[in-house]
Amino acid sequence: MLEQIKHPNDIKSINPKDYRLLAKEIRKFLLLNVSRTGGHLASNLGAVELTMALHLTMDFPKDQLVFDVGHQSYVHKILTGRMEGFKSLRQYGGMSGFPKRTESDCDAFHSGHSSTSIGVALGLAQARDLKGTDETIVAVLGDGALSGGMAYEALNNMARLREKKQKLIVVLNDNKMSISENVGGMSGYLNRVRSKKEYVDFKGNIEKSLMQIPLVGEPIAKGLKKSKDSIKQLFVPGMMFEDMGITYIGPIDGHNVPLLVETFERAKKLDEPIILHVVTKKGKGYKFAEQDPSRFHGVNPFNVRTGKALKSGGGLSYTDIFSETVTALAQEDPEIVAVTAAMPEGTGLSKFRERFPERFFDVGIAEQHAVAFCAGMAAKGLKPVAAVYSTFLQRAYDQLLHDVGIGRLNMLIGVDRSGLVGADGETHQGIFDVTYLSSIPNFTVMAPINGKELKEMVTCALKEFDGPVAVKYSRGSASNLFEEQYTPLKKGKGCILKQGLDIALIPLGNMMEEGILVYEELIKDGYTPTLVNPRFVKPLDEELICSLMDRHRLIVTMEEGVLNGGFGQQVTQILTEHDYKGRIRNIGIDDRFVEHGSVGELRKMLGLDSASMTHKIKEWIGDKA
Amino acid sequence: MLEQIKHPNDIKSINPKDYRLLAKEIRKFLLLNVSRTGGHLASNLGAVELTMALHLTMDFPKDQLVFDVGHQSYVHKILTGRMEGFKSLRQYGGMSGFPKRTESDCDAFHSGHSSTSIGVALGLAQARDLKGTDETIVAVLGDGALSGGMAYEALNNMARLREKKQKLIVVLNDNKMSISENVGGMSGYLNRVRSKKEYVDFKGNIEKSLMQIPLVGEPIAKGLKKSKDSIKQLFVPGMMFEDMGITYIGPIDGHNVPLLVETFERAKKLDEPIILHVVTKKGKGYKFAEQDPSRFHGVNPFNVRTGKALKSGGGLSYTDIFSETVTALAQEDPEIVAVTAAMPEGTGLSKFRERFPERFFDVGIAEQHAVAFCAGMAAKGLKPVAAVYSTFLQRAYDQLLHDVGIGRLNMLIGVDRSGLVGADGETHQGIFDVTYLSSIPNFTVMAPINGKELKEMVTCALKEFDGPVAVKYSRGSASNLFEEQYTPLKKGKGCILKQGLDIALIPLGNMMEEGILVYEELIKDGYTPTLVNPRFVKPLDEELICSLMDRHRLIVTMEEGVLNGGFGQQVTQILTEHDYKGRIRNIGIDDRFVEHGSVGELRKMLGLDSASMTHKIKEWIGDKA
Repeated sequence: MLEQIKHPNDIKSINPKDYRLLAKEIRKFLLLNVSRTGGHLASNLGAVELTMALHLTMDFPKDQLVFDVGHQSYVHKILTGRMEGFKSLRQYGGMSGFPKRTESDCDAFHSGHSSTSIGVALGLAQARDLKGTDETIVAVLGDGALSGGMAYEALNNMARLREKKQKLIVVLNDNKMSISENVGGMSGYLNRVRSKKEYVDFKGNIEKSLMQIPLVGEPIAKGLKKSKDSIKQLFVPGMMFEDMGITYIGPIDGHNVPLLVETFERAKKLDEPIILHVVTKKGKGYKFAEQDPSRFHGVNPFNVRTGKALKSGGGLSYTDIFSETVTALAQEDPEIVAVTAAMPEGTGLSKFRERFPERFFDVGIAEQHAVAFCAGMAAKGLKPVAAVYSTFLQRAYDQLLHDVGIGRLNMLIGVDRSGLVGADGETHQGIFDVTYLSSIPNFTVMAPINGKELKEMVTCALKEFDGPVAVKYSRGSASNLFEEQYTPLKKGKGCILKQGLDIALIPLGNMMEEGILVYEELIKDGYTPTLVNPRFVKPLDEELICSLMDRHRLIVTMEEGVLNGGFGQQVTQILTEHDYKGRIRNIGIDDRFVEHGSVGELRKMLGLDSASMTHKIKEWIGDKA
Repeated sequence: MLEQIKHPNDIKSINPKDYRLLAKEIRKFLLLNVSRTGGHLASNLGAVELTMALHLTMDFPKDQLVFDVGHQSYVHKILTGRMEGFKSLRQYGGMSGFPKRTESDCDAFHSGHSSTSIGVALGLAQARDLKGTDETIVAVLGDGALSGGMAYEALNNMARLREKKQKLIVVLNDNKMSISENVGGMSGYLNRVRSKKEYVDFKGNIEKSLMQIPLVGEPIAKGLKKSKDSIKQLFVPGMMFEDMGITYIGPIDGHNVPLLVETFERAKKLDEPIILHVVTKKGKGYKFAEQDPSRFHGVNPFNVRTGKALKSGGGLSYTDIFSETVTALAQEDPEIVAVTAAMPEGTGLSKFRERFPERFFDVGIAEQHAVAFCAGMAAKGLKPVAAVYSTFLQRAYDQLLHDVGIGRLNMLIGVDRSGLVGADGETHQGIFDVTYLSSIPNFTVMAPINGKELKEMVTCALKEFDGPVAVKYSRGSASNLFEEQYTPLKKGKGCILKQGLDIALIPLGNMMEEGILVYEELIKDGYTPTLVNPRFVKPLDEELICSLMDRHRLIVTMEEGVLNGGFGQQVTQILTEHDYKGRIRNIGIDDRFVEHGSVGELRKMLGLDSASMTHKIKEWIGDKA
C-alpha cells in the first residue's frame, strides 16, 4: 500500500477501505526506521491517521501545513515522497528530523521549538489574504505546546480573522502529553472538555426549552439575547476558545480517518478562525510506546521486539551529575527548589521530584515563566534551580536579564545540551548561550571540563550564592579528563593544567576533549604548549589570562559556540587592553547555523576537531614574524 | 489629608468618609509633580482608589504587592512614605519611576517590562508556603499585560495553588488600554465580561429552577452533576479564568474604595488562586488624560491647565524618520506590511496605520508573536516591518533566531530606543541589542549616525532584501551630522568621514554625536585622527577596518551598549586576526545595569561623554611604547 505513495497527494488514490491498512503500514515503516536510526517516535505514531486525513483533504504543495515543534512531521514526510530519506534520518548530510522549507516545498515552515505554529500560520494566512490567493492553511500543534505563552499570544490574535472572514484552521492534537505529562490549568481544562462530549448533542433544542423555566426563564432569555454565546457556554466544550473569538470544533477521535476527513472538509468551508480539537493516543500501535510514551518520545536505536535500547548510555552524563548533585544538596538545604519547563526526564530533575515532590515544579513548556517564577522564589530567600536546554533557554533571555539579572537574585541555571547537540540539528544546537548569558550583568557563567568540576560548580553556586549563576554543560557522557589533578574551584579563577612556554591553549568547557588532543599533537611536534582550563566565562580570570602574555607567542581560545560575542572575543578584549604583543586566535563557530549530524562529524565540518585545530595552530605559530 | 501619610499603613488612620478627599489630594499631587518632572500619569490617575484599597487591607512591608510593568506604582510610593521622592522623580540620583526592592522594603519586586507580575507573585507565594509564613501576596496587572504570553504561562500555572489550598490574589486592573487601545480575543472577552454584570445575581437560584425544564431538564441536571462548573458557565462572568482553575471575582468598580476594601477582605479569606477583576478609568480625574489616555500615558513636563507639553520635541526624531520612510515606501510596494507590539504611537507606526489600515497589525504586548507573525508573512513573500523598542525586543530573541534567522526570512526590524533611554532607567536601557542581534546568523545589523542614513538604511533593506535586517536607532531627535558629505550606502561597507593618520575613532551609530567632539578635541591638541562611520555591525566591514591598521597607532571603538559581545569586541577580533600591531581600545558600557537619569548625565557617569573619552584616548596614545 505504502509503495503506491511516491508523490504528494498520491494518498488520494487509495481506496478508503484501505485506510486502516495504510495506517498500519505507516506505523510499521516508522518503527522499522526509527528503531534503526533513532528519532522521534511516539508523537509520530500518534499522528498517523491525523496526518493521513490532512493529506486526504489538502492539496500539497499549494496548501500549507505548519507543524508545531516538528516532532510529529514524519508521516507528512512519508506522504510527500520522502520515504527514501528515512534511511539517513537525522544523520549528517541526511534528512532532517524536522520540517524544513529547504528540504521540500511541501514544508510550509521550519520548526523545532515549541508553540510557534499558530503565529506563523497566522502570518501565512494574513499574507494569503493580502495577496488574494485561496490556499488552505493549517497549523498542527500538540496540547503541550499550548502551555507556551507564544501560542497564547497567537490565539489572542486569531480573533482578528473573524472580522474580515479570514480562514485559518488550527488542529489541536491532544494526546495529554508534552514530552512528559502535561501540567497546568489549560491541561486540566482540556481534560474536562474531553469528558464533556455528551453535551454537544443538547445544543440544538436547549434554547427553546429554557424559555419555559418558571421563575427566572424570562430574565435569562433576555440576557441571552444580549449575549448569544451564553447558551453555547453551557453546552459547548471548548468555550474557552469561543470566548477568545475562535470557533471551536471537537473533541473528535483522532484515529478515525473518515470522521477526520469529514470534519476537515466541514472546517475548510468556514470563513473564520477555527480550533479543531482532535484526541489521539501518543505512541499508538506500539505497545511499549503506548505504555511509556515519554521514554519513546525521542529515542536512540532500539530493538523493536523488546523496546530496549541497542546500546546503553556509557557512564554518567553531565545531566545525571547535575541533577544528582542538586538532589543531594537539597537533602541538607530545605531552601533548594527545582524547576523544569516540561523536561523532568531530559534534565534529570525527575530524581529531584521523587525525593522532594513539594519542592519540585514542572511549569510546562514555558521557559519565560520558569525563570520569572524562580525570580519570585529567589526574592523570598529560596534557592531555585532551573535546568533548561541551552536552545530553549533562548526563550527566557529577557526574563534572565530583566527579572533575575536586575534583581541580582540567587538562582542556579543548569544550561543543559550546551554546544553541539547532534541529530536534532539547527533548531536545537546550544551554540549561542555564552553570548547571550555573558551580556547579562550580575550573572556568573561557568563551564566545566569534567564531571567532578560540574559537581563542584553546582555545589559552590548553591552554597555560596552571590547573584545568579549559569553552568553550561554538554549533552552525553561526562568527561573525566584531568579529574585526578583537580584544583579546588575559586570564584572567577581558572587554572593551568599544563604549563608550557610557546602556545597557550584555552579550550572552554567540553572543548577540552579536543583541546587535550591538540596539546598532545603539538607536544609530539616539538612545541611546549600551555593548557588552560578557564572554568569561568564570567567573570573572566583576567589575572590568569594576563599571566599568559609573557611567555606565549600565540594564545588560542576554543569554544563550541558562535564567535560573535563568545568566550574568545572576551578573552581577546582583555589581551588587547593589556597590549599583548603576541598573536591571538579565536576558534569557534563562524556566523552560521549548524545542521544535524553526529557531534564528531559536525566538529570536523566546522574545523573544531583536534586535527583541524592543530593544523591551523601550526600555521599560526609557523608564519609568525 | 495627604500630609498625615508619612509611613506605610498610615492610611489606615484616615476616616473612611475622607477617602474621596484623599483620592482627590493624591491626584492633585500626582498632577503637580508629574507635570513638572514628566513620568507616567494616566495609569497612576486610574489606580488611585485601587491602590488606596490595597493599602487599607494590606500590611506593609509584611504583605507583598507586585506591580506589573510598574507604570501604576506612583500611588503606592506616595502611600509608603516616598512623597519627597517625587521632587526628583526619574532624575539622575533621584527616585525611580518603577518599583525597586533597593528603594523600599515595601516594593516586593522590581518591574519595567510587561506581564511578569503573576509569575513573580506565584514564586513569592510558593516560597511563602514552603517557609510557612502567612503574608498576603497580591499581583496587580493591567488588562494590556494579559496580551503577553508570559502572563498566560503564569495563569496556566496558578491552578496548581488550588490543590494545596494556597493563596494568591491577582488584581486585573482593567482600563481597556495598554498604552494604546487593547487588541485581541482576550480584550474582546473582557469587554463582554464587563457588560455582563447583571448575570451574577442569577447564580443563586438558577440551579434549582433548571430541574423544572420539561424536555431536557433531567439529562442536563445529570450532566451538571458531573461537571459542577457548567451552571456557573452560563451566568458567571470570567468563566475563562474559572476554566483555567482560578477563582474569578468581579467585575467591580475600581473607583469605589469601600466596595474594593470589602472585596479584598473577602478575597483574602479564600485559600485559593483568585483573579479579582477591577474596572478603572485610565487618566481618571484629569480631563485631558481621560480624553486622551494614550498621550498621557508617559509624558514630558506639561502645563496642567492646558494639557500641553512645555517644550516641543525639536525636529524630527529617528522614530519619525523610520516610520515616515516605511510608510512612503509602502505606497509603492504593496508587499510592505507593518507590525507593532502595542506601540503604534511610540514607534510612529500609527502613521502607517492611517494610510494602510489593512496592512497594519497591532498584536498587543506580544513581541514573541510579533516576530513569529512577521516570519509567517515573510515566508509567503511579504516584506514585514516591525518596530520594537530595543529593551522589549529582548523578549523575542528566540523568535528572531529560530523563526526568522534560521529561515533567512526577509523582514525589517526597527530597533527603536536603542542605547541609553534616560529616565526610565535600568529596566528600559537599550544597551544589549548589538550583542544579542549579532549572535544571530543571517541577520544584517545597521546603526545610522544621522536621519538621512536611517532613511537610506530602511530603503535599502526594503528594496534589496537579502535576509533579515535590523536597524537600531536611538530615542529623541535625529542628528544631522555629516549629512552633507553623504556617501551612498553599500551593503557591509562603512565609510571614512575624516582621514587622519595616528588615531582611528570608530563610534557606532548615535555615538557619533560624542565621537565628532572627541575628534575636534584631538585635532585641537595636535593629533590627526581618522573618524570612521562603521554603519554595519553585521556584516562588519573587514576591509575598512583592516585598512586602518597601517597608519594608525591606536584604534578606538565607541558604543552606547555593553562591551560583552558588543561592536568593539567584534572589531577587535578582526584586528587581532590580522595581527594588528597597534593599540586597540573598546569604549562602551562595562558589565552593569544603568539607572535612570538624562542621557547626558548617564554618559558622563559611564565615561561615554566626549570629555572622558578624549581624556582616556590621550592617555592611551601618550604612554604608547
